[in-house]
Amino acid sequence: MRTEFEFIDHIKKKYSLDRIGDDCAVLPKDAGTDMVVTVDMLVEDIDFRLDWTTPELLGAKVLTVSLSDIAAMGGVPKWSMLSIGVPVKLWDSDFIDRFYEGWHTVANHYGVKLVGGDICRTPDHLVFDSIVAGETAKGKAILRSGANPGDSIFVTGELGGAAGGLILLESGVRFSATHEKRKRLIERQIRPIPRIAVSKYLAENNLATSMIDISDGLSSDLHHFCEASGVGARLDADKIPVDANLVALSITSDQRVGMALSGGEDFELLFTSSQQEISSPEFSQFHLIGEVTANIGIVDVISGGDVTLMPRKGYRHF
Amino acid sequence: MRTEFEFIDHIKKKYSLDRIGDDCAVLPKDAGTDMVVTVDMLVEDIDFRLDWTTPELLGAKVLTVSLSDIAAMGGVPKWSMLSIGVPVKLWDSDFIDRFYEGWHTVANHYGVKLVGGDICRTPDHLVFDSIVAGETAKGKAILRSGANPGDSIFVTGELGGAAGGLILLESGVRFSATHEKRKRLIERQIRPIPRIAVSKYLAENNLATSMIDISDGLSSDLHHFCEASGVGARLDADKIPVDANLVALSITSDQRVGMALSGGEDFELLFTSSQQEISSPEFSQFHLIGEVTANIGIVDVISGGDVTLMPRKGYRHF
Repeated sequence: MRTEFEFIDHIKKKYSLDRIGDDCAVLPKDAGTDMVVTVDMLVEDIDFRLDWTTPELLGAKVLTVSLSDIAAMGGVPKWSMLSIGVPVKLWDSDFIDRFYEGWHTVANHYGVKLVGGDICRTPDHLVFDSIVAGETAKGKAILRSGANPGDSIFVTGELGGAAGGLILLESGVRFSATHEKRKRLIERQIRPIPRIAVSKYLAENNLATSMIDISDGLSSDLHHFCEASGVGARLDADKIPVDANLVALSITSDQRVGMALSGGEDFELLFTSSQQEISSPEFSQFHLIGEVTANIGIVDVISGGDVTLMPRKGYRHF
Repeated sequence: MRTEFEFIDHIKKKYSLDRIGDDCAVLPKDAGTDMVVTVDMLVEDIDFRLDWTTPELLGAKVLTVSLSDIAAMGGVPKWSMLSIGVPVKLWDSDFIDRFYEGWHTVANHYGVKLVGGDICRTPDHLVFDSIVAGETAKGKAILRSGANPGDSIFVTGELGGAAGGLILLESGVRFSATHEKRKRLIERQIRPIPRIAVSKYLAENNLATSMIDISDGLSSDLHHFCEASGVGARLDADKIPVDANLVALSITSDQRVGMALSGGEDFELLFTSSQQEISSPEFSQFHLIGEVTANIGIVDVISGGDVTLMPRKGYRHF
């Protein structure tokens, strides 16, 4: 069976779709501005479960997932359209009102305006499709394809927490009935934060040569970016910022690193820079994890004195 | 239970959403151009059934539904994003390839470029979300709100055919195994045509003061447009262009008119004009069906010497 990534490659070639393949499509707007636009579909019992979260947090997450794509391009979010498919039993409750309340809390915080959408009935499962458009200065969208051998590779925060939260939720643990570190893990899963402010700092200071958000998992997203840039990467396993709260799970240190490498939905940004050091009084969370190489498509992981090839693991639908 | 229209009114007021309420959102693009953008969600076993159609025709219809919204604004379609949610059993078949083939046939015909999208797994039902953006000259998008008392009301083609086709499909009749007139009715349901060319003619010649596409049904969509324009309407029942192929159904003449009034998905355009007569060698299908009045929100239907209030009937999800 084809993965969705293989299918997307297939139709890109078949129909010459040259604008597909980044976190957002970049489209010309006016003389000084480009538009960046993204869409994300989320399906009940595939991408989320109602008993894991609240309607408000779900509304917030649906928008955040798309804001993270805008952040990955160095964009400033502007407007959104939201399609929702709702089974009758939920329509006939306060679910939708609470969902929109959570959605708008995030939208107001980031200055996003809802300009359209669609409302449908579904036979049994909730489905959301979230469209967000933003803007960048002309030609300044930060693509996946701009990395050069020798560039440093950074991530903007700790990884693996959302995957840890997912394991807890799947095993029946709930936010309201667990301890502090486990709460923080579940929070990374159900209340993600889009890295809009860090993205703005990187874009305004021309610090990133390429960028992607970590939605499928570091390993998978790093391979995407190596393919797009025609480069390879060398990661230092000891420098990968493993979520500190993962110690609350009964797993080994190696398993924690594995979750940081292949767990999805942390929504941190992975970017490359020609600089070896980036610091800012406002943002202390830049973690230098490795270097871009000329070994096209090859990601090496250095751990102690050993070098291993990083397998491509991460979330996929098919 | 609230209808979706009541819910949309509610959130428009609650969150001050002043760009919602037309077939497309109108957004500023550059000095000379506005962008018009629309989104439509279609759900299996609610909006379509797989055994009614082919994957190619379904792909074509998913795009057409959105192109019809662009046409309703007098827009020229430019680009699209498409989200699809697919159950595993269909992913593992030729369905998606054939769906995209049908989608691209329409896209190529109208010059629409696929610039993005999302692919998801669903537990059991197909779901599509179709985003299309187009352009109009600055300030020239044809809104629902521009009608003035005294304007003539036109539709661009015959009505009720798609509803007739739906009745046939629901009763088990299939395109490949029925007679000519019934084939034409089913075709209106499974192979709709977006009125892009007529829309372009109307827009370029400044002929329409307001416009909407007939997706929910003439009666329902006419009420939408009266609300938006703050006007009423007087329709001449004898002038409503009832689909000629409806004679192939075992229903009365009154029932046929009823289907033309409240059947959805014909995707003809309903527009008002300050002119009483519009003709063009290229487009013969303008049907003058009535007049805009100052009786806000009231739609009268004149039939013989009788005047009756038109009830608001049409498709809704809730």
